[in-house]
Amino acid sequence: MHRPDELRDLAESYLAELALTPELHGQAESVRYALTMGGKRVRPVICLATAEAAGAEPERALPAAAAVELVHNFSLVHDDLPALDNDEVRRGNPSVWARHGEATAVLAGDALLVEAFRLALSYPTPSVGRELAQATLGMIGGQYLDITGTAPDEATLHRLKTGCLFAASVGVALWVADVPEREQARWRAFGDELGLLFQIVDDILDGDGYVLSHGADGARVLADEAADRAHARLEDIAADTSVLAEIVAGLAARTF
Amino acid sequence: MHRPDELRDLAESYLAELALTPELHGQAESVRYALTMGGKRVRPVICLATAEAAGAEPERALPAAAAVELVHNFSLVHDDLPALDNDEVRRGNPSVWARHGEATAVLAGDALLVEAFRLALSYPTPSVGRELAQATLGMIGGQYLDITGTAPDEATLHRLKTGCLFAASVGVALWVADVPEREQARWRAFGDELGLLFQIVDDILDGDGYVLSHGADGARVLADEAADRAHARLEDIAADTSVLAEIVAGLAARTF
Repeated sequence: MHRPDELRDLAESYLAELALTPELHGQAESVRYALTMGGKRVRPVICLATAEAAGAEPERALPAAAAVELVHNFSLVHDDLPALDNDEVRRGNPSVWARHGEATAVLAGDALLVEAFRLALSYPTPSVGRELAQATLGMIGGQYLDITGTAPDEATLHRLKTGCLFAASVGVALWVADVPEREQARWRAFGDELGLLFQIVDDILDGDGYVLSHGADGARVLADEAADRAHARLEDIAADTSVLAEIVAGLAARTF
Repeated sequence: MHRPDELRDLAESYLAELALTPELHGQAESVRYALTMGGKRVRPVICLATAEAAGAEPERALPAAAAVELVHNFSLVHDDLPALDNDEVRRGNPSVWARHGEATAVLAGDALLVEAFRLALSYPTPSVGRELAQATLGMIGGQYLDITGTAPDEATLHRLKTGCLFAASVGVALWVADVPEREQARWRAFGDELGLLFQIVDDILDGDGYVLSHGADGARVLADEAADRAHARLEDIAADTSVLAEIVAGLAARTF
């Protein structure tokens, strides 16, 4: 079994060497910029670890893991636009629109999204692509609820904005590892806990969201409960899920 | 064989009744608006006619035809944005951003794109989705060359901006009709002519592009030559391509 750091290195190398479609011409520069701004690669690591726990070589899951990361990057590029969150800085660097202009940033997000589907469609069956499409549509719906302030409740908002893509990080790995649909439920129950855990810890680090609604201590309790549920779901799975457990512990304890 | 008008009605009904993903929530309203602003549905009609000429029921090609139209609509919604073409009007109606706001329009384009892949992925194999991804990436690259004025030449620009998606309208139909890859070349040679024909006639109607570079008479000659080549390619195909020939004649002679 590969440790989380090794899986992260695998994902990082794959993304760094990813051949973009030549027909993008100069547009590829901003796409590459968006991709190499870094981040923790949490979603691809979860994907690769799930695939390996389910019996597949992590290398086989690399296109799916990268596809999920590209969808995540697409969402950041479009969310940062002046018309949406108007963020000029992303992880200490100029955001894509601040660096490459607004028009190119719109197209960069579009290109990331379609490159994600190109990768998801490199598998022999459409399952990975279908999983990714559903998750991405949920994420777009969540972003709409967020910017319009029309979410019915906090849980729905976070399930769509964050949860869908975390759950898909697990879901696409199950298809890559050929886990039959009837055996996927326990894995998916685990995947459903991850997004909430990530979101609460994010809010604790940023001092917003769950901290505003539940206080700092209340948010910490919620994060620990989410981590406990994720661990409990892993114990329901008849496989070596030790690396996934390590990832959950890392997500709960992360400080950046 | 269905006539072009009948195929257009089929496509129109399918699009009007298309069930959008419920997780889009309120975002669906602007997506629906973008879809029902009309247009000639040229690409879906070509797709359905190709599928039928190649031996498939056109109904089987409806999801693929709709997917191509959704990608076309996605490109219009994003191209109209203030940061790109800044068009407030589209076909006599407010463009999506003028009607629903810029943020919602960014998300509407994103949602159209992903709904297109969801439809393309409803087939048992990934072929339709792969064809659509390649064409869409070419289209995005073409849009980049256009807005940055960096196209190496007019032909490359139009092949990417317009040609890719016309060619894919034929290409996806070949996969739906199970035309073996080794027999696709003649069909694809036909598809490659369509985008150029459409673009030149568009420029004649708008008095720009090819009219500016070749004069009104020169552009008409180029359009007729493109139509002749498209007809010649159809004659190379051992199938009843009469409806496709009718579509070519209609594209060459269209006045709106």
